[in-house]
Amino acid sequence: MMSTATTLAEIWRGPFLESVHAGHAVICDASGEIVEAWGDPQAVVYPRSSSKMIQALPLLTSGAADAARLTDEHLALACASHNGAEIHTQRVDRWLKDAGLGESDLRCGPQEPADIPARDALIRAHESPCQIHNNCSGKHAGFLTLGKHLGAGPEYIDPDHPVQAACLEAFEEATGETSPGWGIDGCSAPNYASSLQGMARAMARFAAAPADAPETRLHEAMRAHPDLVAGEGRACTELMRAMDGKVAIKTGAEAFFVAILPEQKLGVALKILDGGTRAAECAIAAILVRLGVLDAEHPATRKYLDATLRNRRGIDVGSIRAADALR
Amino acid sequence: MMSTATTLAEIWRGPFLESVHAGHAVICDASGEIVEAWGDPQAVVYPRSSSKMIQALPLLTSGAADAARLTDEHLALACASHNGAEIHTQRVDRWLKDAGLGESDLRCGPQEPADIPARDALIRAHESPCQIHNNCSGKHAGFLTLGKHLGAGPEYIDPDHPVQAACLEAFEEATGETSPGWGIDGCSAPNYASSLQGMARAMARFAAAPADAPETRLHEAMRAHPDLVAGEGRACTELMRAMDGKVAIKTGAEAFFVAILPEQKLGVALKILDGGTRAAECAIAAILVRLGVLDAEHPATRKYLDATLRNRRGIDVGSIRAADALR
Repeated sequence: MMSTATTLAEIWRGPFLESVHAGHAVICDASGEIVEAWGDPQAVVYPRSSSKMIQALPLLTSGAADAARLTDEHLALACASHNGAEIHTQRVDRWLKDAGLGESDLRCGPQEPADIPARDALIRAHESPCQIHNNCSGKHAGFLTLGKHLGAGPEYIDPDHPVQAACLEAFEEATGETSPGWGIDGCSAPNYASSLQGMARAMARFAAAPADAPETRLHEAMRAHPDLVAGEGRACTELMRAMDGKVAIKTGAEAFFVAILPEQKLGVALKILDGGTRAAECAIAAILVRLGVLDAEHPATRKYLDATLRNRRGIDVGSIRAADALR
Repeated sequence: MMSTATTLAEIWRGPFLESVHAGHAVICDASGEIVEAWGDPQAVVYPRSSSKMIQALPLLTSGAADAARLTDEHLALACASHNGAEIHTQRVDRWLKDAGLGESDLRCGPQEPADIPARDALIRAHESPCQIHNNCSGKHAGFLTLGKHLGAGPEYIDPDHPVQAACLEAFEEATGETSPGWGIDGCSAPNYASSLQGMARAMARFAAAPADAPETRLHEAMRAHPDLVAGEGRACTELMRAMDGKVAIKTGAEAFFVAILPEQKLGVALKILDGGTRAAECAIAAILVRLGVLDAEHPATRKYLDATLRNRRGIDVGSIRAADALR
């Protein structure tokens, strides 16, 4: 796995290279063919939360979303790894209540919100975070909505539950591959593996889908609601805003990142080998600049690509830079 | 830098290797010669907080520590990257007051405590963290004590200040090398670079120092007060306790780790290329087991070496494993 990876991001401090991140990245066109690649496109990867758009497809194709009158906001949350801010938790809470469900029906586990005001409010109230605060609670609300529509049982995260069977079918259809296996994600749902090219191919299929396709409805929802997909201060939200909603991007745990470029009909997938999120954010920004959809001089871009590292007194101590290979 | 590194830790999820960490590691004997190495011993590195024991040497050799009647607790804090828990902040606050100084004399910058009770207490009181909460506040109290003893000015973190000149001299003496340069650390002090072997050599010199040497006094203070060197839940504290105080270990930012083994008169230094702390903790535990000073079956060891990864519902989803090369 190491030997074929390419350096994608560098951490500089003073005159020396302090740390280095290697990985794989692939750009695919609408036919699923490789336009450009770094490292090994055939590396087997877990896309983690970068597969949420694929996991949300059965919610639409089954008719469950329309039966439950889900809006673009619901769909953006189904694809989200959110900060657990009030704008996220209020909407997921409402979604569950509207479906006649509640927090205890979720199977994602509790998580302290990444959103600082939400975190501090819980601490001041001496309250523990709940499952609605979990960054995946929108995806799980979607799973529950689908499960209810299918008349299936409550343990919707079991790999042989109809909800997960539908997700696997959607995943293999989107990637164009038979998945070699799965692991259990942080939120307890199965996470299906594919080649990195498979994930880039899936994103290209989203990008090239017809205007009325479920894939289009999902990436349109993400592009319309970048604040619901992640949250304030997060790369997904800030970079989607910087691209004026023309491109959908989504991170995944252990330094995964994907992008859907509808105008270009291209899909991108990348994995930093060591799981370092800072490098995945830097690399996806570099690739989006390279593809001409992100302005290199936009302040949001400069936060992730060739970003200045500041220490606890705000002093410039170094930088995180995309490797030459991505320029 | 990448090409000569060796895989040191692996992250497994379900049937697949999800992430990989590569790095360099060196074990040196009392003469400074390499006993065993992985990757490139000549890699230029910033030891970051792993150099705190060296930065504390001038505090002793100058006579400043004895003039200020510093105890082992002060010396352990001077070598610490602490959690900002009450046991740390109360002692640093007292240290500064006893010296006729205060929080505003520090130049390390404020930092939210890693210690959860301390963090939550600040949030509930609507108070901001101060510089005493900074994980490096003990080192900086030592710098201030030395600066006062030398009659030097207040900007003790300037590279040409007498305190930093003394630190550079101690660093080059300990590593046996001319430092190729420096960067600015997270706490605003200069951090001198060396080869990785230079840092392992320095740690071996600490390990082999005579009973009355300043080096011995420092690693004895660390081994006597593992709770002051880091804090509850931290690798330095937990692994030093697991070794019954026989070995001193110290982490540094960007995945540095060193160990001082007085009985074996050995020193260890390692750097994970990508800055991933989880991998540095795993690799140092593996090397300490390999050297016969850490019990592989101790619960603290099992937290870092071949540790089970659990998700937000406590489900076993994978493991972090030391690479075969370290077995």
